[in-house]
Amino acid sequence: MDNPFFSAIRTHQLAKNSLLCIGLDPHFGRLPAVVKGDENPIFRFNKEIIEATKDIACCYKPQIAHYSAVGAERELELTINFIKSLGIPVLLDAKRGDVGSTADMYAKELFERYGADAITVNPYLGLDSMEPYLSRSDKAVFILCRTSNPGSAEIQNTKLNAGEQVYERVAKLASGSWNYNSNIGLVVGATNPLELRRVREIVGEMCLLLPGIGAQGANIGETMEAGSNGEMLISSSRAIIFADSGNDFGDAARQMAIKTRDEINLCRTMS
Amino acid sequence: MDNPFFSAIRTHQLAKNSLLCIGLDPHFGRLPAVVKGDENPIFRFNKEIIEATKDIACCYKPQIAHYSAVGAERELELTINFIKSLGIPVLLDAKRGDVGSTADMYAKELFERYGADAITVNPYLGLDSMEPYLSRSDKAVFILCRTSNPGSAEIQNTKLNAGEQVYERVAKLASGSWNYNSNIGLVVGATNPLELRRVREIVGEMCLLLPGIGAQGANIGETMEAGSNGEMLISSSRAIIFADSGNDFGDAARQMAIKTRDEINLCRTMS
Repeated sequence: MDNPFFSAIRTHQLAKNSLLCIGLDPHFGRLPAVVKGDENPIFRFNKEIIEATKDIACCYKPQIAHYSAVGAERELELTINFIKSLGIPVLLDAKRGDVGSTADMYAKELFERYGADAITVNPYLGLDSMEPYLSRSDKAVFILCRTSNPGSAEIQNTKLNAGEQVYERVAKLASGSWNYNSNIGLVVGATNPLELRRVREIVGEMCLLLPGIGAQGANIGETMEAGSNGEMLISSSRAIIFADSGNDFGDAARQMAIKTRDEINLCRTMS
Repeated sequence: MDNPFFSAIRTHQLAKNSLLCIGLDPHFGRLPAVVKGDENPIFRFNKEIIEATKDIACCYKPQIAHYSAVGAERELELTINFIKSLGIPVLLDAKRGDVGSTADMYAKELFERYGADAITVNPYLGLDSMEPYLSRSDKAVFILCRTSNPGSAEIQNTKLNAGEQVYERVAKLASGSWNYNSNIGLVVGATNPLELRRVREIVGEMCLLLPGIGAQGANIGETMEAGSNGEMLISSSRAIIFADSGNDFGDAARQMAIKTRDEINLCRTMS
């Protein structure tokens, strides 16, 4: 059976002609003044962004720390429920990683409490730490492989005796023995086109979540060339949701989302 | 200047003659019936456990997933405030790991919202992902090194070209360039005495947080022998807090905490 998340993503990507995943990282200090007086300012902000971009985003990706830092768990729940009411898939970015019964609790948090369709997780603790997520054939799990930050090479690019690097080992395991439910995707920073190309070689058509365009400065053309020949979710957060801080922030986000989608599509045609 | 967390730990360890860190993982389904009808059942449970063991534990370690899975953020806040009102240090076990502005948000969640004195973090994303925690010279940061779960070897024990294993590289970085504020400790599963001994060789006297005794079955004697010659926090959670599910759960937890402290101390004398 096809994974429900990957299958929904494909449907939205085709219908909207868009690989764009919009990250909902509503840093409280950056919210427009017009929403700050609201009872649920974060939810009001997200709702306007979502309504303005729902025909462009194939997926939304709320990042959980932006809610938990300010005690806005309820606003995260409202946000996810709203996205789901529109029939759009939700990828909850939490990068959890722990063992045994604690991992079960994180799975409960992300899948039951928040109702995420897909999540991000950290592979450092190995397969058994990810079982509570991977055992859910109804959900998708994006495993961190090669992240977009400058310091990511410190562990991820260390060379193993076997001749490969740590991130390559993660890619091999994730596309091999870990993927017994065909529900794995990988997170690969768009800021590293060389590693992105290598991951694509290893994992075949597996869905890759590519953060790093927009505020983090990755080149869309290089990303599209390196990641093509498989499924992709191109993620942008701050560059879209904070495109403007005035009353028309929704419109500004829409224009930026359209621009980003079109830039991606132009490079798709060329690559 | 001495790190406030490590310094407080030493004070409590000396005063109480105890290396025992009690983990507060209040799995909701396992709470005694007597607290379940309470308005704040998790806090009521924790409070009784803490009151019954406050002269034995040198530190408490709430594990955040057990609270977030059931929407009990407020009860986690109450628990931490209560521990701090007794002057006992709080290590908040959250194993976060993310980049840039998101890592800032996690630091805000753990240090500002919850007021943790120390936290656990995941090293897979490298130094810059940990900067928002490591830059806080007033806090302590326990980095995952070699975890206690069966699958931990999959990444952590892979051999590098340089002749070391991934967990050894983490131990070297953590006791070297990452430790510019002298505020790092390492998490090393007590279930792996060989690796524990190796980590101790690498890091010298650095404080090691050792989970795995109690419910996870590590041998206290082996742990003490391998980890001695430096600072240690021996962590036990379920074996103590769920020692009994009746009305006298606090007393039962106290008896088990005393037994565990004494077993540890017996092995300290011998090793």
